[in-house]
Amino acid sequence: MSERIVLAYSGGLDTSVAIGWIGEETGAEVVAVAVDVGQGGEDLDTIRKRALDCGAVEAVVADARDEFADEYCLPALQANALYMDRYPLVSAISRPVIVKHLAEAAKYHGATTVAHGCTGKGNDQVRFEVGIGALAPDLKVIAPVRDFAWTREKAIAWAEERNLPIDVNKKSPYSIDQNVWGRAVETGFLEDIWNAPIEDVYSYTQNPAEQRDPDEVVITFDKGVPVAIDGETVTVLQAIQQLNQRAGGQGVGRLDLVEDRLVGIKSREVYEAPGAIALITAHQELENVTVERDLARFKKTAEQRWGELVYDGLWFSPLKDALDTFIAKTQEHVSGEIRMTLHGGRAVVTGRRSEQSLYDFNLATYDEGDSFDQSLAKGFVQLWGLPSKIAAKRDLHS
Amino acid sequence: MSERIVLAYSGGLDTSVAIGWIGEETGAEVVAVAVDVGQGGEDLDTIRKRALDCGAVEAVVADARDEFADEYCLPALQANALYMDRYPLVSAISRPVIVKHLAEAAKYHGATTVAHGCTGKGNDQVRFEVGIGALAPDLKVIAPVRDFAWTREKAIAWAEERNLPIDVNKKSPYSIDQNVWGRAVETGFLEDIWNAPIEDVYSYTQNPAEQRDPDEVVITFDKGVPVAIDGETVTVLQAIQQLNQRAGGQGVGRLDLVEDRLVGIKSREVYEAPGAIALITAHQELENVTVERDLARFKKTAEQRWGELVYDGLWFSPLKDALDTFIAKTQEHVSGEIRMTLHGGRAVVTGRRSEQSLYDFNLATYDEGDSFDQSLAKGFVQLWGLPSKIAAKRDLHS
Amino acid sequence: MSERIVLAYSGGLDTSVAIGWIGEETGAEVVAVAVDVGQGGEDLDTIRKRALDCGAVEAVVADARDEFADEYCLPALQANALYMDRYPLVSAISRPVIVKHLAEAAKYHGATTVAHGCTGKGNDQVRFEVGIGALAPDLKVIAPVRDFAWTREKAIAWAEERNLPIDVNKKSPYSIDQNVWGRAVETGFLEDIWNAPIEDVYSYTQNPAEQRDPDEVVITFDKGVPVAIDGETVTVLQAIQQLNQRAGGQGVGRLDLVEDRLVGIKSREVYEAPGAIALITAHQELENVTVERDLARFKKTAEQRWGELVYDGLWFSPLKDALDTFIAKTQEHVSGEIRMTLHGGRAVVTGRRSEQSLYDFNLATYDEGDSFDQSLAKGFVQLWGLPSKIAAKRDLHS
Amino acid sequence: MSERIVLAYSGGLDTSVAIGWIGEETGAEVVAVAVDVGQGGEDLDTIRKRALDCGAVEAVVADARDEFADEYCLPALQANALYMDRYPLVSAISRPVIVKHLAEAAKYHGATTVAHGCTGKGNDQVRFEVGIGALAPDLKVIAPVRDFAWTREKAIAWAEERNLPIDVNKKSPYSIDQNVWGRAVETGFLEDIWNAPIEDVYSYTQNPAEQRDPDEVVITFDKGVPVAIDGETVTVLQAIQQLNQRAGGQGVGRLDLVEDRLVGIKSREVYEAPGAIALITAHQELENVTVERDLARFKKTAEQRWGELVYDGLWFSPLKDALDTFIAKTQEHVSGEIRMTLHGGRAVVTGRRSEQSLYDFNLATYDEGDSFDQSLAKGFVQLWGLPSKIAAKRDLHS
Repeated sequence: MSERIVLAYSGGLDTSVAIGWIGEETGAEVVAVAVDVGQGGEDLDTIRKRALDCGAVEAVVADARDEFADEYCLPALQANALYMDRYPLVSAISRPVIVKHLAEAAKYHGATTVAHGCTGKGNDQVRFEVGIGALAPDLKVIAPVRDFAWTREKAIAWAEERNLPIDVNKKSPYSIDQNVWGRAVETGFLEDIWNAPIEDVYSYTQNPAEQRDPDEVVITFDKGVPVAIDGETVTVLQAIQQLNQRAGGQGVGRLDLVEDRLVGIKSREVYEAPGAIALITAHQELENVTVERDLARFKKTAEQRWGELVYDGLWFSPLKDALDTFIAKTQEHVSGEIRMTLHGGRAVVTGRRSEQSLYDFNLATYDEGDSFDQSLAKGFVQLWGLPSKIAAKRDLHS
Repeated sequence: MSERIVLAYSGGLDTSVAIGWIGEETGAEVVAVAVDVGQGGEDLDTIRKRALDCGAVEAVVADARDEFADEYCLPALQANALYMDRYPLVSAISRPVIVKHLAEAAKYHGATTVAHGCTGKGNDQVRFEVGIGALAPDLKVIAPVRDFAWTREKAIAWAEERNLPIDVNKKSPYSIDQNVWGRAVETGFLEDIWNAPIEDVYSYTQNPAEQRDPDEVVITFDKGVPVAIDGETVTVLQAIQQLNQRAGGQGVGRLDLVEDRLVGIKSREVYEAPGAIALITAHQELENVTVERDLARFKKTAEQRWGELVYDGLWFSPLKDALDTFIAKTQEHVSGEIRMTLHGGRAVVTGRRSEQSLYDFNLATYDEGDSFDQSLAKGFVQLWGLPSKIAAKRDLHS
Repeated sequence: MSERIVLAYSGGLDTSVAIGWIGEETGAEVVAVAVDVGQGGEDLDTIRKRALDCGAVEAVVADARDEFADEYCLPALQANALYMDRYPLVSAISRPVIVKHLAEAAKYHGATTVAHGCTGKGNDQVRFEVGIGALAPDLKVIAPVRDFAWTREKAIAWAEERNLPIDVNKKSPYSIDQNVWGRAVETGFLEDIWNAPIEDVYSYTQNPAEQRDPDEVVITFDKGVPVAIDGETVTVLQAIQQLNQRAGGQGVGRLDLVEDRLVGIKSREVYEAPGAIALITAHQELENVTVERDLARFKKTAEQRWGELVYDGLWFSPLKDALDTFIAKTQEHVSGEIRMTLHGGRAVVTGRRSEQSLYDFNLATYDEGDSFDQSLAKGFVQLWGLPSKIAAKRDLHS
Repeated sequence: MSERIVLAYSGGLDTSVAIGWIGEETGAEVVAVAVDVGQGGEDLDTIRKRALDCGAVEAVVADARDEFADEYCLPALQANALYMDRYPLVSAISRPVIVKHLAEAAKYHGATTVAHGCTGKGNDQVRFEVGIGALAPDLKVIAPVRDFAWTREKAIAWAEERNLPIDVNKKSPYSIDQNVWGRAVETGFLEDIWNAPIEDVYSYTQNPAEQRDPDEVVITFDKGVPVAIDGETVTVLQAIQQLNQRAGGQGVGRLDLVEDRLVGIKSREVYEAPGAIALITAHQELENVTVERDLARFKKTAEQRWGELVYDGLWFSPLKDALDTFIAKTQEHVSGEIRMTLHGGRAVVTGRRSEQSLYDFNLATYDEGDSFDQSLAKGFVQLWGLPSKIAAKRDLHS
């Protein structure tokens, strides 16, 4: 029996060609695995058929949209995950769910190797390979584009030579990765970091500068999970999808930054993540209302590390797992409603209410009859400042 | 000779009344000290005269606007200081500069005590008293509003009884603190955290929802200091003022959050800080381009702690001083230009350029001829993931 | 029916007198609560009887030794909790368990108030009151020593006047707090921080300088819990007790440091904690063997914060709870054996073995036939250093 | 003119052979560079001569002992640098100073390449190559042992074939790296982590179990720098050397741990660092006396990161530089004297005194006449615990 290789398959030119190329180079049978994480585009059956037409011995297609929303987007939301305070880890969280399906397919189909189409200068190679190493440490990994310097030109030549059922002319100037959590765009002219993105770059979001009416939305969370929008029960996937529509329709969630890749270089990235940004904004404010101060402060440290780990390909790692238990614990009381106005590219919280609120009107109000005992403050202030004062007494004389 | 008390004087009802009240209660002479940190309103001479009319033995007025911008706003900018990821520490950074002038006046005028008008449930009492403790540890502090339960009603009665030159009818529904770095607003109806702010609350910013043309601005930084706007040299104060105008004119910098006060309660705060938000946004992106990854990651930890310390009244403290040296070091290469579009409540970076850039087009580009050696990646990825892989091998069997 | 006050009762002079004094001052009935956390000394019945003789309306005595070991010492062990890298939080972890019994007694006996005998300059007042606030936020707290300036001299006079059954002459020069996790000693001559402790200060430990034979011990952990000593199954309490004997007999666990109190001052403290130090030392090394690197590194951050919170009286707090879930997760694989030599004041790990070990002989060995692929290293090193190298290229020219 | 390669030369078999081997393989001229960091052994002239006899075109020998002590050991001391809370970074801090001399020699002698003798599974390759990349980013690096699978057996054969002046029979069972800051030992039987070290492993330290008289020492620090021992002025190098003698003579500073290498594996390491451990112990306690609490707490975070960076080969990196400025700032008041007893493997602080002390006897004493105002405590405690209390009120009902 032949050796089998599982290939992360997108349906596009590069990975379609890879099916045959890997087969020829290695003599192995190729099992193509395509995972729907909400990227849209062609339907799974079309993709499945193309894989087989291109020579795959098996083609596995998985609708992982709910799984992706529940097990990958939701932890990112609860971690308020914004790498470098900006980027909601769009591609970074989709790779692990794909890896999980690759590992399962490899086990099921008896493959010894996993193949992916990433280059050697991006983050995704790390996410694929480290993920495979963690889920199926005995699998080997090959990366034709990186390890064999496979290029688009070679791929086209190969496809034409073998008359593969791929439209090689459908060349987009953009390199795009998208899923329900957002969309990442790279393209030549954006590699000059002085250039601004043009409107053509965007797809999930409308132009925020256009005049339109504001959209007010109320998002209900239960223990950190978005469970209703405007009072209608939703799954996590539906929450993201609906907010992609509504926040995207108002131009919310465009991002443009120079970011630090794990492989040691800085790159310029443009993203759209209307649903993610709206949800994170709402979630952060509900945490402001329901999470105790010291816990909130330390959670920021945990959030930053969580974001770095996930960006850096360590989704399946002991520290990530342990941070997840910490973050899950912080969500126990993150229940309530956030009212937001979506408009002109902004998602602005205008109201919050919660039975789990730690905001105590009677303690906070400046009206008469408040319950805060101001006589306690003097002692507090004096001892709070005592270490600085003792140091100051010394330092003023030295 | 009488004992002397230095009073932090705003020119308003409460502190005007306090001049006489403190004098009567303590038998001390009161020296009123008013500090201009860009809050606008009455001119310093008017305020000075009122203090004397209300019974102050001396009235000191100081134009501290440049000092405030250079020594307080600038460190906050370089720390990208946003308490709870939102609030640019508007009041928190103005208290220390006022404290400094109070301590100097106390020394100059031979006072033994400093008085302030803060309540016992806010942060500002801490900032005043801990600051005084650090700059002049031998001074005593009194806080009539807090320690003697002084109220607005008592103040009005007192003022009318003594016929003080204060317009007691000029009652605003808002409690406002403002300076060049921003403006904080509290008012009764906002104490219900489900209520949205109304347009009347705002003064530094125009309604972002109104249609107007975008404003493009180029900000030049030199070692973390904003030194030019659209090519025109500016002081730090001018940079903030001009961006307050221009970003404020586009509705940038409105903030509304529930925040954790040092005294242990949550409060709801509404802020406007157009210049601060525009500058911090630009500065963060220039750091993305010019600051090395590990340094940038640790700087976030330092930034968070810096913001907590300053919010919590510890501006003059050994840790704050040491973090300042760290942050100053990080700014060595933060030089270059950021182009932003100010529009519709958003300050969006659209371009960045810097001779100190660490973004290397030749390493980053996906065009041919790039200089990144992809053959290095495989080994990197393998060893990067090795700890997770070893752990996975164990964990899959246990 | 009279109001009732629950008093944290030690059996000693101060709290014995407090029973009557509180009763007289407040008109309330006093319920005395004594908790055995392994402090030794008088038996609980004697203490119980004395409380009643001194006028308590009820006297509750609780053997909380196993509870203390399992629910307070064990989390401290798993957190490797050493405040300021030295102090194993001896008193800090006993206060919460006492508070728990006070709160339960208050509920059971219908008390409205809790009383404790702490002074106003120590940490224990915070631990008692913040703990009560968290477990029973409606209870009031009184602290006679602090709030009414009650002194030892007043207590003696009061006891003699009323002929209380207390030996007022049993004055020790030492102020001691002890439990099974360790022993804290304060005394006048140690307040001069240049003075060394004398041998008379110590009770849990023998003089380490005396000649004696080493003692080799093997401690078995299961998921972070010490479960056997030299192969004999033990409870956590027994593990601590046995190691107090054996490590204490070798002079292990003496500590002498200047430490930062929460109330803002530095104090000099001398501790003995032979069992705690031996267990923590063993546990740390077993973690070195079984915990993955990134997790181990972040755990240090969590450990430091855990120790600060517990020292600072925040045992019952949301952040402490959430850190506990994190730490519990880290212990999943901390199973195995540690061999230590106890001798001359040192507890030295000499061997470790674990089925959960991440130490892989075949990867680590420098013998032939190792499984580490050195060809991966070059790429790793190059990309690992790339950010520094890019920064260096810039910095060398600027 | 020939290309030149600078070789990190130790005088031992491997690097002696490497001189000729590199020359033959590459056709380049080899410049041997040996750096004295206090490792003892042969004198520099002998080493120099051997390099030339083995075919080096130039042989540079540098006495870098003071430079190493002042610029590498001292920052490590001020950072209290103990990787994994144990290891004082003995080898990790010597590599950068060697790298500096290699880079200087490469520049001076016009070399294009640096060669080192490290394997591919250790940390030192990273420290060498990342260091070279940061100091001289244009230099190439070769590592014959790693990149050409060069082994001891091949080296011996090569040496015998060419009759090189090296005693190939002087085979030690130990792989040793030593310098004035300490000594690292690896050997086959220690790769079984259940095996205890034997006495033969140690060279810097006497057996701590042997009976001998204690040695009391007073170390004086000025701004974090050890400047006198028992009142006699010393350089940093002398301080380390003298304490290596005195603490080593008492068996202080033996370490045995399983540690996390950067390349992703765990290894077992045995170290001796008597001077380093004695100095760090003294320095930490002087910091306890002279550094303010919040600063001390954050410094631990900075120290941990500093240690990780240095261990991980990032001595010359922007974050390490910035942490150095932070740590330098913390040392401003770390002046005073520490009295220690060195005995039986322990370095125990018994006294501390400092004009910069923040320990205030009058605040700390429990004697009468103390200056601490206990009436302030109640308010402090109440507000300190308020967030927990508010959370508890909610949580008890949910």
